[in-house]
Amino acid sequence: MSDITPPARCGDLFASGCPSREVLKHVTSRWGLLILVALRMGTHRFSELRRRIDGVSEKMLAQTLQWLEGDGFVLRVSYPEVPPRVEYSLTDAGIEVSERVAALALWIEADLPRVLAVRRRQHEAG
Amino acid sequence: MSDITPPARCGDLFASGCPSREVLKHVTSRWGLLILVALRMGTHRFSELRRRIDGVSEKMLAQTLQWLEGDGFVLRVSYPEVPPRVEYSLTDAGIEVSERVAALALWIEADLPRVLAVRRRQHEAG
Repeated sequence: MSDITPPARCGDLFASGCPSREVLKHVTSRWGLLILVALRMGTHRFSELRRRIDGVSEKMLAQTLQWLEGDGFVLRVSYPEVPPRVEYSLTDAGIEVSERVAALALWIEADLPRVLAVRRRQHEAG
Repeated sequence: MSDITPPARCGDLFASGCPSREVLKHVTSRWGLLILVALRMGTHRFSELRRRIDGVSEKMLAQTLQWLEGDGFVLRVSYPEVPPRVEYSLTDAGIEVSERVAALALWIEADLPRVLAVRRRQHEAG
């Protein structure tokens, strides 16, 4: 048996079995996206993220941080203090993906008046 | 009563009640994102989208196209022919949002080897 690992190939989101679909899910889930955008402002503690991201439950925040840590986008550092202190920050890959995510998020926020106008017209027509 | 509509404000994804969160969901849902990327290649019929996007069900494709049409990102044109022909394409806003979405999708596809390497190391360490 050879111990040479074949080079991993680029993902294909259009293929249903490709693991890139799972990464996409982590990054573009509502909470994943907002965590990545929030961490662009710097290191956050769990409680700070919870306050910043309106509506996220403790369970979903912990779950999503675990996903992003597992993909190597978020670094979790636990300090041996009393009470324990845990801090989250972006890795280099996290900084890169969050740039794309933030560009999309900002565009959607800025575009909201247009969407609301479209819906108003559809409502009036229908 | 005034008939002047106040100017719609920019969205805030960090606020739980903001309707921009719904738009984000439509655009970054697995099928929404893949539809937007696929339509960048040009107009598609329903059956063509279904073939292009591996794994999507007829129901989910129809539902997601309706979301994107409702937000004004996708134009649906139905031709009065026998058999009926329905074509989907991007609106101007759809082209703009799909640029951001495609940038993110391409980055995630290209980054997959790094994610897989991170997971392999975590598996070996754990």
